Amino acid sequence: MRYQNLDKTAAYGRLADHAARRKRLDFRAALNGERVRKAQCEMAGGLRFSWAAKDADDEALGLLQALADEQELVEKYRALLDGDIVNVGEKRRVLHHLLRGELGKPVIENGRDLGDFYRGELERVLAFAEAVRAGTIKGSTGESFTTVAQIGIGGSDLGPRALCLALENWAARAGTKKLDARFISNVDPDDAAAELARMPLARAVFILVSKSGSTQETLANERFVKARLLAAGLDPSKHMVAVTSETSPLARNPEYLDSFYIDDYIGGRYSSTSAVGGCVMALAFGARAFRDFLRGAAEADRLALEPEMLKNAALLDAMIGLWERDFLGMPCSAVLPYSQALSRFPAHLQQLDMESNGKRVSRDGEPVSYPTGPAIFGEPGTNGQHSFYQLLHQGTDVTPLQFIGFAESQLGKDVEADGSTSQAKLNANLAAQIVAFAKGQSDKNLNKDFPGGRPSSLIYGKSLTPEALGSLLAHFENKVMFQGFAWNLNSFDQEGVQLGKVLAKKVLSGDSGDSALEEYATMLGL
Amino acid sequence: MRYQNLDKTAAYGRLADHAARRKRLDFRAALNGERVRKAQCEMAGGLRFSWAAKDADDEALGLLQALADEQELVEKYRALLDGDIVNVGEKRRVLHHLLRGELGKPVIENGRDLGDFYRGELERVLAFAEAVRAGTIKGSTGESFTTVAQIGIGGSDLGPRALCLALENWAARAGTKKLDARFISNVDPDDAAAELARMPLARAVFILVSKSGSTQETLANERFVKARLLAAGLDPSKHMVAVTSETSPLARNPEYLDSFYIDDYIGGRYSSTSAVGGCVMALAFGARAFRDFLRGAAEADRLALEPEMLKNAALLDAMIGLWERDFLGMPCSAVLPYSQALSRFPAHLQQLDMESNGKRVSRDGEPVSYPTGPAIFGEPGTNGQHSFYQLLHQGTDVTPLQFIGFAESQLGKDVEADGSTSQAKLNANLAAQIVAFAKGQSDKNLNKDFPGGRPSSLIYGKSLTPEALGSLLAHFENKVMFQGFAWNLNSFDQEGVQLGKVLAKKVLSGDSGDSALEEYATMLGL
Repeated sequence: MRYQNLDKTAAYGRLADHAARRKRLDFRAALNGERVRKAQCEMAGGLRFSWAAKDADDEALGLLQALADEQELVEKYRALLDGDIVNVGEKRRVLHHLLRGELGKPVIENGRDLGDFYRGELERVLAFAEAVRAGTIKGSTGESFTTVAQIGIGGSDLGPRALCLALENWAARAGTKKLDARFISNVDPDDAAAELARMPLARAVFILVSKSGSTQETLANERFVKARLLAAGLDPSKHMVAVTSETSPLARNPEYLDSFYIDDYIGGRYSSTSAVGGCVMALAFGARAFRDFLRGAAEADRLALEPEMLKNAALLDAMIGLWERDFLGMPCSAVLPYSQALSRFPAHLQQLDMESNGKRVSRDGEPVSYPTGPAIFGEPGTNGQHSFYQLLHQGTDVTPLQFIGFAESQLGKDVEADGSTSQAKLNANLAAQIVAFAKGQSDKNLNKDFPGGRPSSLIYGKSLTPEALGSLLAHFENKVMFQGFAWNLNSFDQEGVQLGKVLAKKVLSGDSGDSALEEYATMLGL
Repeated sequence: MRYQNLDKTAAYGRLADHAARRKRLDFRAALNGERVRKAQCEMAGGLRFSWAAKDADDEALGLLQALADEQELVEKYRALLDGDIVNVGEKRRVLHHLLRGELGKPVIENGRDLGDFYRGELERVLAFAEAVRAGTIKGSTGESFTTVAQIGIGGSDLGPRALCLALENWAARAGTKKLDARFISNVDPDDAAAELARMPLARAVFILVSKSGSTQETLANERFVKARLLAAGLDPSKHMVAVTSETSPLARNPEYLDSFYIDDYIGGRYSSTSAVGGCVMALAFGARAFRDFLRGAAEADRLALEPEMLKNAALLDAMIGLWERDFLGMPCSAVLPYSQALSRFPAHLQQLDMESNGKRVSRDGEPVSYPTGPAIFGEPGTNGQHSFYQLLHQGTDVTPLQFIGFAESQLGKDVEADGSTSQAKLNANLAAQIVAFAKGQSDKNLNKDFPGGRPSSLIYGKSLTPEALGSLLAHFENKVMFQGFAWNLNSFDQEGVQLGKVLAKKVLSGDSGDSALEEYATMLGL
């Protein structure tokens, strides 16, 4: 396998050249029904990826395919699946795909098949969840559990939280919603205090999530929760399970009802398909929902093996994003789901993308001389239309847009007003925005003129089911992975979070040796 | 008053020149306790603005002051306060400051003093809220109200929602929290259906917010709510008030318990200090809390009249932001409150800033040739530290940061772990991040090297009270206003949201005349 920087490839210069001399795609002429019908490819879970409103002509697409081939993106993905040490900085394999399927060779370490290990933990998690849901496992007062609260931060919070929100209404309609899912993440004591005040403590089961068993915020919140459980006369060991690694102090610890394991090959932001997401989702929505979710992700992983870019949504999305970032000079990207259920999905993608590819050094430790990961933000539509869309339509920078939409609502409860349902209004707005951004509209009054040429893609399907959600999650994981390979980054470490941790500990120990730090601490009441 | 583009000022060329030849501030040498102590100015509500970790040397600051003077920023603010037609595109005054104080001449229109009008409506709103809280005004079953649900979108949702979240714990501790505040915004029918399923309908009072009385999403959600109220055997007219303009179809309409009025001079994203924010906040937390909030905002408005930039936090924040955007080439800005209560405040600022200054045309309707409003995003710390901070520390672009922190938590419930409280950990992390971003840390392993030079400011205070919150809100409103004046934009219209609305209506009428639009609509089930 050849690992080289993006600007060392033959395709790089040709892409730069093409970007400089090409004419921008004239969407007013080019974006018609035929293009929209054709510029699509299949995704897993009944979804499709539509890129008709992307500003990439045939020559650009051909060069991007050449770049993908030259950087051996699919081959690198295969190596990752086979258990290669892809996370070179930390000398770790990257195995989150193995949580939901086995597309590569068996990964054996110290005589243990890691696929078997992950599958075994999955079964233990699901059996636990079903026992709680059936009322077989009860709290210390003998009452069954009605609330599950996850204690975790970063990848132990953002993904699982976004996914639980995404399926709450689906599960309510399917009749599989049983426990309320809550989350405690911030070390701000108001977070834990307010969440605990809202839940029936005697009927709450907590999931403590920390791979290392040493995450400062999570351990502080564990202490907070245990103090409240004790004060309420409850036995904390009957109200808490741990999700951690086998080598952590939380493992096989009698302070917890049970412990479920992941390992160092499951990065935090990639852990939603492990026990980190599985325990809370299965408790809330049932084992079957979580299995369906995994099936959607597994199928997306399989489709991502296709070398032909136009048939591989994750690869195509990755390469067009790279085109926009490195050759068209666009610094941000917005994620705009037209589904209230996905209201926190952009926050998960923000972590996934920015923590994976927000890097200035190649996997070999050399500075790169091209832009890497963009800033990611987003809110659900139509809400965003009444907010930051003004800048997206008429601001001085162009921001590529990722729309997501579904034909049907999750709850199926709707009302007609002015001759259309709310769901029809939602999707009419979505269709309208794609076209408005692409085509714009001329007006002599330049304040009312829309320049257009603002590119977007659309992921769409019939409805947001567990399977569709798994597909969606894995799509973005794989997109980010392909971009990281193309930029020659290590997308699987996060050294950029270390310095702050070290300095915070120095502040708390009262021995920072930095007068500015001391002064800030004083200003903040320390 | 002279209105001219930024690049027509004398200061512009000198700033560009200085940016090109200056040396970047070496924070490792310059950022010490003395600089941190000195580089601060007072804000309203007990807050302070600290800019020690901003990369602006004395020469830059001098030139920015010259620019502020040359663009007559404070004079333009005075003209706005006096009721000038500052929103030139829509030929409207801009009077949100008058909602909370009277710093300019009386604004008289058609013989009516608009200050008196706003104050009169405020008193009506607060009297209504107190009557509901006292149980004098009841629902159609004769039960008192326990939940207030606001139906609105954009500025009728984001600001009020962020502010209610910000004060919920404060009010719980102060003993003034009475009604639960909920929000229904998205036209996605799952939003209304899920929110309604969570609340006791017979004890819920709804606030319908639409200035024009014609907002598509809001009227659809009104229909949704009324259908559910009727189905529950309740009388909708006893469960809903309207906040609207006097000329709207919602005004003086017997379908509502009462109506409260704003006018065209209160823009949606600037309406949180009107009945749009006041009704829900006063119902939830009491009249006094809302008055205190207004007092904080009024005081911030007064401080923003100071012509000397280093004594005017809003002006200083505005000019440093412009320096970073136009002269240092930074395309985004992140808002990072170390307070879970402010978890949705970045979403409000995203609207406030991006909808106000996301414009490519000057107030005179000519294209500008310099970058205007940046993309804004943010999440609370410490959560963000475990997410997108990787890119902020080590990404290829530099993103200016706006930190916010408070010495005390709101609920005052805390726990010690490893020798420190959660609140101490929270603020130790905040102090550490400011210094880590500014100073970085060298490492021979470039993957662990932090370049530093990543600028930030800090707004801090003792605690997040209603007054502090009013100060915070008005600070950012005034910052955005000053930047809009400096860029010579009209920050008070939002023409960029119109085209999508028009096209969505065409889709719904089945007569778009655009084959691409039809195809997208079909894909989305229409």
